[in-house]
Amino acid sequence: MKQIKGGVTAPKGYEAASTAAGIKYKERTDMALIYSQIPCVAAGTFTTNVVKAAPVKWDKQVVENGHMVQAVVVNSGIANACTGEEGLGYCKDTAKAAAKALHISPDSVMMGSTGVIGMQLPIEKLTAGIEVLGGKKNTSLVSGTEAAKAIMTTDTCEKELAVEIILDGKKVTIGGMAKGSGMIHPNMCTMLAFITTDAVIGKDALQKALSEDVADTYNMISVDGDTSTNDTVLLLANGLAGNAEIIYGSEDYKKFAQALHTVNEYLAKKIAGDGEGATALFEVKMEGCESTEQAKILAKAVVCSNLTKTAIAGHDANWGRILCAMGYSGAQFKPEKVDLFFESRAGKIQIIENGTAVNYSEEEAAEILSQPEVTVTADIKMGDKTAAAWGCDLTHGYIDINADYRS
Amino acid sequence: MKQIKGGVTAPKGYEAASTAAGIKYKERTDMALIYSQIPCVAAGTFTTNVVKAAPVKWDKQVVENGHMVQAVVVNSGIANACTGEEGLGYCKDTAKAAAKALHISPDSVMMGSTGVIGMQLPIEKLTAGIEVLGGKKNTSLVSGTEAAKAIMTTDTCEKELAVEIILDGKKVTIGGMAKGSGMIHPNMCTMLAFITTDAVIGKDALQKALSEDVADTYNMISVDGDTSTNDTVLLLANGLAGNAEIIYGSEDYKKFAQALHTVNEYLAKKIAGDGEGATALFEVKMEGCESTEQAKILAKAVVCSNLTKTAIAGHDANWGRILCAMGYSGAQFKPEKVDLFFESRAGKIQIIENGTAVNYSEEEAAEILSQPEVTVTADIKMGDKTAAAWGCDLTHGYIDINADYRS
Repeated sequence: MKQIKGGVTAPKGYEAASTAAGIKYKERTDMALIYSQIPCVAAGTFTTNVVKAAPVKWDKQVVENGHMVQAVVVNSGIANACTGEEGLGYCKDTAKAAAKALHISPDSVMMGSTGVIGMQLPIEKLTAGIEVLGGKKNTSLVSGTEAAKAIMTTDTCEKELAVEIILDGKKVTIGGMAKGSGMIHPNMCTMLAFITTDAVIGKDALQKALSEDVADTYNMISVDGDTSTNDTVLLLANGLAGNAEIIYGSEDYKKFAQALHTVNEYLAKKIAGDGEGATALFEVKMEGCESTEQAKILAKAVVCSNLTKTAIAGHDANWGRILCAMGYSGAQFKPEKVDLFFESRAGKIQIIENGTAVNYSEEEAAEILSQPEVTVTADIKMGDKTAAAWGCDLTHGYIDINADYRS
Repeated sequence: MKQIKGGVTAPKGYEAASTAAGIKYKERTDMALIYSQIPCVAAGTFTTNVVKAAPVKWDKQVVENGHMVQAVVVNSGIANACTGEEGLGYCKDTAKAAAKALHISPDSVMMGSTGVIGMQLPIEKLTAGIEVLGGKKNTSLVSGTEAAKAIMTTDTCEKELAVEIILDGKKVTIGGMAKGSGMIHPNMCTMLAFITTDAVIGKDALQKALSEDVADTYNMISVDGDTSTNDTVLLLANGLAGNAEIIYGSEDYKKFAQALHTVNEYLAKKIAGDGEGATALFEVKMEGCESTEQAKILAKAVVCSNLTKTAIAGHDANWGRILCAMGYSGAQFKPEKVDLFFESRAGKIQIIENGTAVNYSEEEAAEILSQPEVTVTADIKMGDKTAAAWGCDLTHGYIDINADYRS
């Protein structure tokens, strides 16, 4: 497997475009299109929130009905959530407008929205934007990157990756783009991720590959503990690589799943590290666990703890908060057996041995915690299972962004 | 029932004292003593965190063994949590020192600690403090108030209440004090509450009265979602009121339970409203629920949502975040049936009817949300059960306090 340049337009046969439709933001792009030259099989995972945005309902139906998909239309600024029948109607209008502009069926159009909940979309601006997108779409890598920029809300940078593997002698490519960066606690999030591949793979195998991996990637990140109404990950496969069909469970499937994991984990970590107001990516690793489930529960509790996240913002080795979060996670373990380490590019330091503090240097710990990527590793010495979760520090920036988001 | 002046020293036979032992803070009191002139039956509820502070382990044992209790020693500054065998030893030392100073048995001494996790107590300062407390204790109301001040950490004000009821022709008094104000998400918190009464009541009935009420009061508040290692509520009854013994389930029991609820709810709301950095008490009421359990889950999810709490800080009627939090709570309901209201002393306004926004005034909503106590009420129209939860807004103050707590 090797990383290559680009994102969603890196695999064969995919085109992208972006435009400034003026949906809510001024002076920036706010709509993106992903288009495949031939129909794709589509897999998707969606928010588990009882309150589901209109585009989530639309996409779920497309995936469940097994429709072949050829286009994904995405807007930022307004989430089209809690918008009732009117909001669902705008999904139909979006699909119709895309079908007309792209000469495809409305059933083959998926969509994603992110932004303020409860506002109605300015549908005329949206449909005019689709017209522009249809005329601009192209296969260049830069059009993929520009699409990744158009879907941002409070994100500070675009997030994309592409990797290449060889299957059956053929080059197979997976590309993806995603956005965060608040209301992020995916439990398949206003997390959106769109992955494209030119692999030949059936719909069921594609959905399994996505569903299995989401549990270890997007579902292991948290910015603020709020699971959005719009979380969506879509994975399209158009088969243009010409490999022999990837069969679930085969060696080729494992290679494909590993490559998909690389893209998903990269995008998930990028979302976590670019959480609203974040100054650091905060990684929590659990080791020595009895089960992966236990490891995940412990890692997620620490990465979600407001007190721990604020300590990270302050570069304070306040390990008591970490042990406290593990303790209320719901998982059972022996606090008096826990070893704990802080690590970053500035070094690695042990803080706790068997549940109590070792004689570490607070200065060294503070130096380690001052880096842009910080890892906490806890070993609970009960087994050999591990898990990782990703989040960010909690800063004044988060308060600034969210105390006045709508205006 | 009537509210009277004072706190833990309001009931007959209780004394209190406070002193500046220099445990961690300088220039303020940091130790408190509650003392009963005669032995008390004792009830307690404790943190469910797997990581339990040494004083929690001590108190649990006292309650479970059914010891009569005559004194509670409390310190702020250091939590005596994650302190291993050494920390447990300091509990013994504390009990011994109190027994000597007060001429009682070490088994009749309970304790509470709050502050930094992982530091060892300076035991000589603590035992010297106990000596001072023993000499100063007295029945005055002001000594109770001073005790409530001594147990504060980042609290901005002391929290105490006393109420009086008549049972069996006798005046029965319940008094209480508590402290917050971070790592507050009680699931019996570094929440400490100490309640005293002069009622005649058996140990089992006392424990039931406490356990049943904690579920509706302390366990329904949250400042930051972090369930502490030290959460403790103790309830002492010395019987000096001379009423006929309160029997579980009787009319007298119901009156006593109602009075206890008044004290507990008052203290719980005080803790929530004085959460770290808080500028407002945030109350969430759920109405029209199928079950109390469903109502509690929904109310707690909203009160815990970082995005909602930050919107409250910004006086922004960002109701989409509230509906979103209800949606990921785990409880089932129909979003399209929800009505939602904001209320404060500035007035009451409907924001959502049947899941979508009504044409409300953003200015009026902002004015309502600018008050020191703000209530959100949601009606899900599925039944007649209700619940309330209490928290606070999430502000720059929280970040300031917690990014640099230990120093």
